[in-house]
Amino acid sequence: MQKTRHWHRADFDQLEKLYRVNLLNSLSGFKSANLIGTADASGHPNLAMFSSVVHLGANPPLIAFINRPDSVERHTLENLLATGWFTVNQVNDDMWQKAHQTSARYPREVSEFDATGLGVATCPVCPAPFVAESRLRFACRLVEHQTLQVNGTVMVIGEIEYLEVEGEAVRNDGYIDIERLGTVAVSGLDSYHRTRRLDRLQYAKPDRPVRPLGSAGDRD
Amino acid sequence: MQKTRHWHRADFDQLEKLYRVNLLNSLSGFKSANLIGTADASGHPNLAMFSSVVHLGANPPLIAFINRPDSVERHTLENLLATGWFTVNQVNDDMWQKAHQTSARYPREVSEFDATGLGVATCPVCPAPFVAESRLRFACRLVEHQTLQVNGTVMVIGEIEYLEVEGEAVRNDGYIDIERLGTVAVSGLDSYHRTRRLDRLQYAKPDRPVRPLGSAGDRD
Repeated sequence: MQKTRHWHRADFDQLEKLYRVNLLNSLSGFKSANLIGTADASGHPNLAMFSSVVHLGANPPLIAFINRPDSVERHTLENLLATGWFTVNQVNDDMWQKAHQTSARYPREVSEFDATGLGVATCPVCPAPFVAESRLRFACRLVEHQTLQVNGTVMVIGEIEYLEVEGEAVRNDGYIDIERLGTVAVSGLDSYHRTRRLDRLQYAKPDRPVRPLGSAGDRD
Repeated sequence: MQKTRHWHRADFDQLEKLYRVNLLNSLSGFKSANLIGTADASGHPNLAMFSSVVHLGANPPLIAFINRPDSVERHTLENLLATGWFTVNQVNDDMWQKAHQTSARYPREVSEFDATGLGVATCPVCPAPFVAESRLRFACRLVEHQTLQVNGTVMVIGEIEYLEVEGEAVRNDGYIDIERLGTVAVSGLDSYHRTRRLDRLQYAKPDRPVRPLGSAGDRD
């Protein structure tokens, strides 16, 4: 490493707040960009950007995401607790600016769909709305939520009850080519990125060198 | 959405195992690529690839990641519980194949550093090793771990005690340009990607349209 900069734990406390937030949000690497759709008990839709959705398991099919502490209004969390459902909608390069705009603090009665111009699509299995412009989206039933005592954030776990995706992106081994769908990645708080595939690699084994996956990952 | 493919919850159970794993690992979007370094109580180093590291908070500075259930040996988890420390090392486009190879199931006594040719760098604050080739890396003190009852995965939470990064990547507002560091993103189980920035966007406000960040994010 050349011309290294470094910070010890106590140094973070001396940083200006926005500098600190930008710096620390850059550390985990590239993040997923998803719009989470919910509806309140009366059916009013809500939409919010999250960069913390992670895969939790394939059997049962589970994802998790992190909600901020309750020092701010959390319409997404309130709604999914009220209805037991939320949708996850991948953000792509045709609508990433509109997706970012959902992070503005709109009043509770304002739909982020109306405010940003994103379209509602009906989910066939749950009351939460899909985003019409999203090319990969799924509906989750709330399984569990827990407040992390360490900082008051709330981890939400959902089971995937329904998935829809543009068919041309699904490879014959089940991998979904999300780069082909224009899915974007996030870094820090506010930077959006397209991707360019380096390669897919074979399942690693101790007794052989790393190899490209090759035709095993081709489309049908 | 055109030519949509869809799956309901019961459909997942009918899928061939690898197809199911590939499909469900594609849903969360792009994932971070990090090597987690640990040492056992005797100081023997271990290195493993994780795509589940997420930002948990800036104050205190926290990250989290997900460990697989104990149906497989989990050297990383055993080591960080034994010593109370681990390091996180961003994977870049100069060493992504070696990073992938660490996911092979090497015996406990084999160091993934030796097996893959990645270099050890000394961490100044903890017994866990840094990866010499990584251009952004940090040391975490174990704060909490908990087994998620829903599927037996283990969530590990660490507090960032020391950070080092190539200085030229740090912008004047604290944002770290991880694209400039060659940091890669992951999709599915095995696909690696470089990125190309679309833009950084200003903090969103309800009463104004979305805007590029512009010079506020320039380097000094």
